[in-house]
Amino acid sequence: MGEAGVDALLLSLGADLPWLTGYEAMPLERLTMLVLPADDRAVLVVPELEAPRVDDDPDVFEVRPWAEGDDPVALVAGMVGGRRRLAVSDRTWATFVLGLQEALPDREWLASSRVTGPLRAVKDDAEIEALAAVSAAADRVAAALLGGDIALVGRTEREVSEELGRRLVAEGHDRVNFAIVGSGPNSASPHHEPGSRRIGAGEAVVCDFGGAMAGYCSDITRTVCTGEPPAEFAELYALLQEAQASAVAAATVGTACEDVDRAARDRIAGGGYGAAFIHRTGHGIGLEEHEDPYIAPGNREPLRPGHAFSVEPGIYLAGRFGARIEDIVVATAGGPRPLNLASHDLTVLG
Amino acid sequence: MGEAGVDALLLSLGADLPWLTGYEAMPLERLTMLVLPADDRAVLVVPELEAPRVDDDPDVFEVRPWAEGDDPVALVAGMVGGRRRLAVSDRTWATFVLGLQEALPDREWLASSRVTGPLRAVKDDAEIEALAAVSAAADRVAAALLGGDIALVGRTEREVSEELGRRLVAEGHDRVNFAIVGSGPNSASPHHEPGSRRIGAGEAVVCDFGGAMAGYCSDITRTVCTGEPPAEFAELYALLQEAQASAVAAATVGTACEDVDRAARDRIAGGGYGAAFIHRTGHGIGLEEHEDPYIAPGNREPLRPGHAFSVEPGIYLAGRFGARIEDIVVATAGGPRPLNLASHDLTVLG
Repeated sequence: MGEAGVDALLLSLGADLPWLTGYEAMPLERLTMLVLPADDRAVLVVPELEAPRVDDDPDVFEVRPWAEGDDPVALVAGMVGGRRRLAVSDRTWATFVLGLQEALPDREWLASSRVTGPLRAVKDDAEIEALAAVSAAADRVAAALLGGDIALVGRTEREVSEELGRRLVAEGHDRVNFAIVGSGPNSASPHHEPGSRRIGAGEAVVCDFGGAMAGYCSDITRTVCTGEPPAEFAELYALLQEAQASAVAAATVGTACEDVDRAARDRIAGGGYGAAFIHRTGHGIGLEEHEDPYIAPGNREPLRPGHAFSVEPGIYLAGRFGARIEDIVVATAGGPRPLNLASHDLTVLG
Repeated sequence: MGEAGVDALLLSLGADLPWLTGYEAMPLERLTMLVLPADDRAVLVVPELEAPRVDDDPDVFEVRPWAEGDDPVALVAGMVGGRRRLAVSDRTWATFVLGLQEALPDREWLASSRVTGPLRAVKDDAEIEALAAVSAAADRVAAALLGGDIALVGRTEREVSEELGRRLVAEGHDRVNFAIVGSGPNSASPHHEPGSRRIGAGEAVVCDFGGAMAGYCSDITRTVCTGEPPAEFAELYALLQEAQASAVAAATVGTACEDVDRAARDRIAGGGYGAAFIHRTGHGIGLEEHEDPYIAPGNREPLRPGHAFSVEPGIYLAGRFGARIEDIVVATAGGPRPLNLASHDLTVLG
């Protein structure tokens, strides 16, 4: 906070609050906000009916419940007092930001990630082990997919998505964040919403799924074929496999994030599919599914030991098919450490 | 927009966007925002990789995909141009609000619910039937609970919560929003997080669960006892049952929301438990779990035909036990119409 010249952090939704305190705000219209001044102790403003969810005797903040009929924005504003430069958590609802700005005119406002992002991005040993454990759980679901234990042909994308979610929970996840299943032409839509389309034979199926265990997130993508694919798909997949491996190999400490992205991008462009890779190579991961550091063009930040992120290039031919391969990787002094170990080989299911 | 003097709506997360367009933004760090000027046609700014999720040929807006590396905030700011009074959707992330404010200095900002809240609160016939259908599905789960089909004693709260969620899906819900299970002393914590506590015999168990079907939300609470409860609990429960019925009966068209709240509150206070009812009586429900109108002290808005809301008083004795009864009710010209019909009688399970 001193380096960023921030006088107070105001933390509501998002992972900053649980990262600092272990308490997570409910995403509701009743304001929960930790007021953390640089020069005073922290106070958690919380709806009275949620106060019993807070530890009886938290050691890092005081608890200030507010009752129905109270104005929690005025309460926070009173605690902020004359402090001038205020950092509000990135996912705080607009209603609360606007309410606070009205109650506290003539202040400077910034996103709390300016303070917390670089800190949260560097995982300590316990966090890396939590990420390794949740990634291993996701790997076991991926192994079931690659091993043909999850029926695909004749089922809807939604049914397969639900099975992936159930398996994540059975393997130890506390919650499912998403389970994308894009089959046939839908495999060319990176954020496809699994729907009522029935998976056919001889199709590409992109499965991208993740959730959280003990707070930390998993995220893995594997693309399989339900029968022998067209020659162009096999060629495209081989190129993608090389591109993904190149980016993982490039992810050494000190390398700029954009250069990790470039390793994948150049390889795909060199194979003639540059225009078909329509997203960044990856995102940081931890308590949030997407966080710093972003492995994207323009991000010159160098990787540090403890940075954990996805490496997930994809190639998408609209209306035809697409593929993506994704692992979580940690930058370590000893080189890039992939946390997902499920096979990358082109898997043709019978 | 004319009445509120709003020059443009800027809709990202929350239900305003799907309510108006059928498209729902993904809750991610890549901005999706509908720019809807009062004097021009609407444009949906969407990440390129999510553009395939949008209808091929939407009739109510143009689609403007942005590519990785583009600045979507600058794109939105350019579309806003010189318009001065801007209403941003309530749940838009703080990062985007602050970014837009920097790109568009000297504007007036307000929450879009100032425009959309009163409109969305009044449900049309199709919306009421959607609420009736999802409430009936939740009722079937409640009936299983009251009928003893869901084992309680010896299981953890989390296990019961998961079963309630599975049953909501089996009864037709597309997603589960929450499934609170608070047993024994935890029944006195209104927003209790179901945990590893094993449910014992002779305990109160508050089950409050809901999800969404075809976009519209359910929300129901029933409190059961695992064996004969203490005399004070039975007395408290009888008072709560009367208070809930009084509030439902009071929910006629033209009655102020605060007077519906008062009907429950006065009855509970009259029974000597006023200090133990620590939340409002209810909240509107529709595409969002909590929305206008709020059935709370201080809300003088009169009920209109088509207003749909929860009626859910509770009585909570910290460290001992608590109870809550909740139904969704619609205000109609013919009187209050409860959409949940599962029994309110004190249910003692064997």
